[in-house]
Amino acid sequence: MIIGYGQFEPALGRREETLLRLEGLLATAGDLDLLVLPELCNSGYHFSSAEMAWETSEEIGRSAFVDFLVETCRQRNMFIASGFNERDKGVLYNSAILVGPGGAIGTYRKLHLFMNEKDFFQPGNLGLPVFETDLGTIGLLVCFDWVFPEAWRVLALKGAEVICHPSNLVLVGLAQQAVPVHALTNRVFIVTCNRIGREGDLHFTGNSLIAGPDGKVIRRASTEGAEIGTATVDPELARNKLITPRNHIFRDRRPEAYDGLAGRPAAATKA
Amino acid sequence: MIIGYGQFEPALGRREETLLRLEGLLATAGDLDLLVLPELCNSGYHFSSAEMAWETSEEIGRSAFVDFLVETCRQRNMFIASGFNERDKGVLYNSAILVGPGGAIGTYRKLHLFMNEKDFFQPGNLGLPVFETDLGTIGLLVCFDWVFPEAWRVLALKGAEVICHPSNLVLVGLAQQAVPVHALTNRVFIVTCNRIGREGDLHFTGNSLIAGPDGKVIRRASTEGAEIGTATVDPELARNKLITPRNHIFRDRRPEAYDGLAGRPAAATKA
Repeated sequence: MIIGYGQFEPALGRREETLLRLEGLLATAGDLDLLVLPELCNSGYHFSSAEMAWETSEEIGRSAFVDFLVETCRQRNMFIASGFNERDKGVLYNSAILVGPGGAIGTYRKLHLFMNEKDFFQPGNLGLPVFETDLGTIGLLVCFDWVFPEAWRVLALKGAEVICHPSNLVLVGLAQQAVPVHALTNRVFIVTCNRIGREGDLHFTGNSLIAGPDGKVIRRASTEGAEIGTATVDPELARNKLITPRNHIFRDRRPEAYDGLAGRPAAATKA
Repeated sequence: MIIGYGQFEPALGRREETLLRLEGLLATAGDLDLLVLPELCNSGYHFSSAEMAWETSEEIGRSAFVDFLVETCRQRNMFIASGFNERDKGVLYNSAILVGPGGAIGTYRKLHLFMNEKDFFQPGNLGLPVFETDLGTIGLLVCFDWVFPEAWRVLALKGAEVICHPSNLVLVGLAQQAVPVHALTNRVFIVTCNRIGREGDLHFTGNSLIAGPDGKVIRRASTEGAEIGTATVDPELARNKLITPRNHIFRDRRPEAYDGLAGRPAAATKA
């Protein structure tokens, strides 16, 4: 299976221009089974107003952006995971969508919103789904979710073999440090696709990466260039949760000792 | 506050020799508030039999090793966290103990046993306690616990500012890669004290480290040398859980979405 990132610069508020850039990027791609694109890829990130966030959003069922992705997947017999400014019932979500040759497959809505995203988006209300595909079981997270090891663990426990991580990272190097460790401690493949470029005072940090179940970075992008990076990976490695012959990272868990991690917040927290 | 690791080679099955080595190591130490020593420091690690594991174990209340640590803490007005082969009611635990100038403070029993430890030790039955001290709130984990992000998160949620991590690491570099990320995603200080040397076919990998709430390694030991490494740290940094002005890593958690992480194991797991 060939997985990859499509690191580029979406055009803020100009979807047609973004699609042209995506076409150009895809023209440089070799064989691919699964491509991950950046966060909020259909809209850009740094909205100057709530109106701009709204105007650049789309419903999944009638989105020129989704139509483009589905058509691409159909033509190339591949899957794409992309960030998506999603409008639904009058509110917006910072979503990730998974599409394949047969159409849209599923949606994740970002649970952990970053900074001013809290002014534009509702926190995700779809939990942490995984999607069974011909490629294997795929999970989705978005950008700042990287801070929360719980999210990666839940997806891995649900069987995710590849976690697609559309991102618009601005904190320098932190997610790029953490993501390979999430891959290691969950023994999954992770594709973090970051964007590049600037919007206003925000500088996006590139360095998209593909990490493996051994915690190693298999492929890493530059900080500034538009580029597709790929790796040929064996999803069987992500199904083997034995980190030693006698240590299965899931069966060795002690959930009865993990007070306050899930369900209602722990009363004892000093947060 | 000055925290540090005392990386050295305990003498398997020869407690008196270990204490001599510890005395020598401590003679090289400058000012210290909290020192972390390796896993199973009173016994050594690679037991040739269950009898050897048993013979080298001690009860905390009548342990020459604990007496030595307490006397050291009293003389130097400091705290020590150390791995400890603990005998209690006829069974053994791979424990970590915290002692201070006033005596023994608390015990953690390793929840996640590594490889052949499963032949000698019972899995921990004391949960994940934290201890309030004059230095701040201290948590304890042991070696292979590093694979389980849940353990670090629970201690941080309970208020741990410094997590002491006595270790006998044999997997090359993995814990040393993961621990700084646990420090980053929980915004705590972590002292991983690894041992050095060989026992039979096991080679311990050194590279003890002190990591800070920004994910950076403040101090790192060599792979082979006996050495005390220290860092002067401000525990206030570990009490500030804001990773951005609008993102509190605990308040931004979404525990209602973390299915199956705690309590009974998730029925849906494919483990």
